[in-house]
Amino acid sequence: MAGPLNAFVPDSTAHLPGAEGGPLAGLTFAAKDIFDIKGHVTGCGNPHWLATHEPAETNAQVVQQLVDAGASMVGKTITDELTRGIFGENMHYGTPVNPNAPGRVPGGSSSGSASAVAGRLVDFALGSDTGGSVRVPSSFCGLFGLRPTHGRIPLDGMLLQAPSFDTIGWFARDAETFAHIGSVMLPPGPPGQRPRRLVVAEDAWELAEPGTRRALETAVDRIGALFTSSAMVRLSPTSLEEWSGHQQVLQSREAWESARDWIDQVNPTFSFEVSDRYAMARSVTDEQIVVAQAGRDAVISRMNEVFDGGDVVVCLPTTVSPAPLLGQRVSERHTLRLRNSALTSIAGNTGRPQISLPLAEVDGLPVGLSLLGDYGADEQLIELAREISRLAE
Amino acid sequence: MAGPLNAFVPDSTAHLPGAEGGPLAGLTFAAKDIFDIKGHVTGCGNPHWLATHEPAETNAQVVQQLVDAGASMVGKTITDELTRGIFGENMHYGTPVNPNAPGRVPGGSSSGSASAVAGRLVDFALGSDTGGSVRVPSSFCGLFGLRPTHGRIPLDGMLLQAPSFDTIGWFARDAETFAHIGSVMLPPGPPGQRPRRLVVAEDAWELAEPGTRRALETAVDRIGALFTSSAMVRLSPTSLEEWSGHQQVLQSREAWESARDWIDQVNPTFSFEVSDRYAMARSVTDEQIVVAQAGRDAVISRMNEVFDGGDVVVCLPTTVSPAPLLGQRVSERHTLRLRNSALTSIAGNTGRPQISLPLAEVDGLPVGLSLLGDYGADEQLIELAREISRLAE
Repeated sequence: MAGPLNAFVPDSTAHLPGAEGGPLAGLTFAAKDIFDIKGHVTGCGNPHWLATHEPAETNAQVVQQLVDAGASMVGKTITDELTRGIFGENMHYGTPVNPNAPGRVPGGSSSGSASAVAGRLVDFALGSDTGGSVRVPSSFCGLFGLRPTHGRIPLDGMLLQAPSFDTIGWFARDAETFAHIGSVMLPPGPPGQRPRRLVVAEDAWELAEPGTRRALETAVDRIGALFTSSAMVRLSPTSLEEWSGHQQVLQSREAWESARDWIDQVNPTFSFEVSDRYAMARSVTDEQIVVAQAGRDAVISRMNEVFDGGDVVVCLPTTVSPAPLLGQRVSERHTLRLRNSALTSIAGNTGRPQISLPLAEVDGLPVGLSLLGDYGADEQLIELAREISRLAE
Repeated sequence: MAGPLNAFVPDSTAHLPGAEGGPLAGLTFAAKDIFDIKGHVTGCGNPHWLATHEPAETNAQVVQQLVDAGASMVGKTITDELTRGIFGENMHYGTPVNPNAPGRVPGGSSSGSASAVAGRLVDFALGSDTGGSVRVPSSFCGLFGLRPTHGRIPLDGMLLQAPSFDTIGWFARDAETFAHIGSVMLPPGPPGQRPRRLVVAEDAWELAEPGTRRALETAVDRIGALFTSSAMVRLSPTSLEEWSGHQQVLQSREAWESARDWIDQVNPTFSFEVSDRYAMARSVTDEQIVVAQAGRDAVISRMNEVFDGGDVVVCLPTTVSPAPLLGQRVSERHTLRLRNSALTSIAGNTGRPQISLPLAEVDGLPVGLSLLGDYGADEQLIELAREISRLAE
C-alpha cells in the first residue's frame, strides 16, 4: 500500500515534475504529508483529517520553490499524526522503516521523509521541526538534517502545529546535496560570520547515554581542528529539563489552539498517545503560560550570552541515544521523549538554527552530532557540515 | 459491511443455534460484542482490541444460558469502544441506526443491541450497563431495558469496565418477551414484595428537559393506579450531580485499572473522546477516591432511607431528553453525558435495579420512564412493566 519502506502515504498519487533546466534538475524529493500539493488533500498522518479536508488549491510555497528549481516531487511521506511525536510510530498508517537501524523507529514526526532519504528512494525530502521532528529522525536514520532559524523559511501551505516553534527543514544523505538544496530553500540573508569558537554544551552532553556520549565525543575530537578554540560550557543555570518544560507548556497550548476546534467537531481517532498529549495540552493553565513565557525569555537571554561575540557554534548530541526499538510502551516512550526534548528545546525555545550531522554510530546504529548556530547562521552551519564531511575523506 | 442498520459487527460470523425444545426456542438474539463467543475474538468496539486478543475459549455464561434455553444467537453487535460512552457513536465502526429516531444517536454503549431490537432484526439482545449503557439506549430507541441488581447476574466471559458498577442487561420491544427472557436470565431469588408505594424523585425530574418532563408526567399519571400511594421526594440532600460525581471518580479509576496495561502496551487508536476519558481517569488521585467512596456510602445510606419499608419503587426519567442529534461536538456531548449521568448514577452508585419503559414520546421521539427498585426486586420491576403494558391495552 504505502510502497517501499512504508515511507509514502498509501494511495496518494501526488507527483510534481521539476521545471526543466533549474539548479536542482534531475533531483527527486518527497514531502511530508503536511505540505499542500495542489489537487490533493493534505492528510497530516490521520485518516480523519484526510476525510474532513478539501484538496489543496495551491502548492506549499517551499514545494513550489523546489519544483521551480527543477527538483521533482515524487510522493507524500507518512508523518506522526498532526506532527505530534518524535519517534515515527503511526498507529493508522504504520511505521516507516529505518533502513539504517533495523527493528528500530525511524524517528518522527518527519518519519517517512527520513526513511525515504535513508533508503535511497529520493535524493532529499522535506520535513518540519517544531520540537525535534527533523533533527531526531536525522539522528536516528544517519542523515543530514537542519532545523533553520525560526521564521527564516515561510510556512505557507504547511500544517501549523505550534507557530512560535514551527520550522521547515530537509534531509539529505550527503553534505553537498544538502547544501545544494539549502541554496534554494533559504532566502538570501546577510553574509554570516564563519563560527570560530566551539562551545561544547556540558549539560547537554550529560543527558546522553554513555555509549552515545563516547561515540559523539570522538566525533567532536575529529572536528575540533576546524575551530580556533573549544570550551566546555553549562548552558542552563538550572537544568535543560527545566528549560524544556517551558517549551512543553507553550508548545502544548499552541498545539491545542491549532487543533481544538477540529477535534471538538470531528472527534477524530488518534493513537492514545496523541490524544493524551492533546488532553494534557488542553489542561495547561494561563498561570502556567505566564511562568513558561518568562522561562522562555530567560532561556533566550542566557543563550544570547553564550553566543556573545557572533562567532560561536554550540555542539551537542542531537538525541540521547540511537533509535529506540519499535513498539515500546507508551509510558516508556513518554519518558524517552522528555529526555530528548531537553536537547531539542534549546533551539526550539530560542529559535536558533541547528544542524544534525551523521558523525557517529553506537553498535552499528547511527546517532547525530548537532551544531547549534546563531540566528541566521543557517548557511554557516551547512558550510561547516561540508567542511566536516571533507575532513572525513 | 455491518449489515442492516449498522447494528452488527462487520465481518463477524459468530452464530449459535439455540437448543431444541427450550423455553426460549424460536427466539433470536444478538449479543453486544463484549460477550465471549467461543472461537471468535471479542472485539469490544475497537479494532486494536480485536487485533491484539485471541479467540474466546468458551461462551460467556449468559450467552450459554440463553442458547441452552433455546434462543439462537445470530450476531455480535457494535458497542462504544470498551463500553466507554452512552451515545453509541463509534468512530471506527460507525453508529448503529436508531430506527425510532431518524438522524439521532441510538444511545450506548449497547448501541447495536438496541438498534437490532428496535429495528426488529432480533427478538431481544444482550447489553451491559455500567453507567447507563442499557438504560440510555432503551430510552432513546423506545425499548424495555433492565439494569439488574448489581451482582445478581454473573459477568463471566464479559469485558469488565468498572467491576463495582458493571451489570448485564437486555432489551426487548414488549414486556411479555422481556419477562420471558428474564425468567432465564435471572437466577432464582427469594420471592420479592410487590411495590405498593410510588416515590417520584423530584430532583431527578427537575433535570429533565421541559418537554420530556411533561411527556413523562403524563406517563406517571397513567401508572399511578397501580400503587396505593404516590409521593414526591427529593433523593439527594445536595444534588444528583454531586452524587453522580462520586460514580464518575470511582468508575474512572476502575476503568483505568481495567485497561491501563493494554493501553500502555498497544497504544490503541480511540476516538479522542474515549482517550480523553481514559486520560482523565488516569489523573484521578487517591484523595479523590477516598472522598468519592465516602460520598458513595452516603448515597447508599440516603437511598436505604428512601426504600425503607420494602414496598417502594422510585420513578424517574431514564434520560433528560430523547436521543440527541448525531454528530454533536465532543464538548456538547460531554455536557450532555454528565446531565444524563446524574440520573443513571442513582442505580449505579447503589447497585439497585432499574428498568426503563418506553412510555413517552416528545415530538415523535421515544423517551423512557424508569422504575428503580430495591435490591433483588428485578422480577418485581419486570412484573410491573407487564402490568403497565396491560394498562395501555
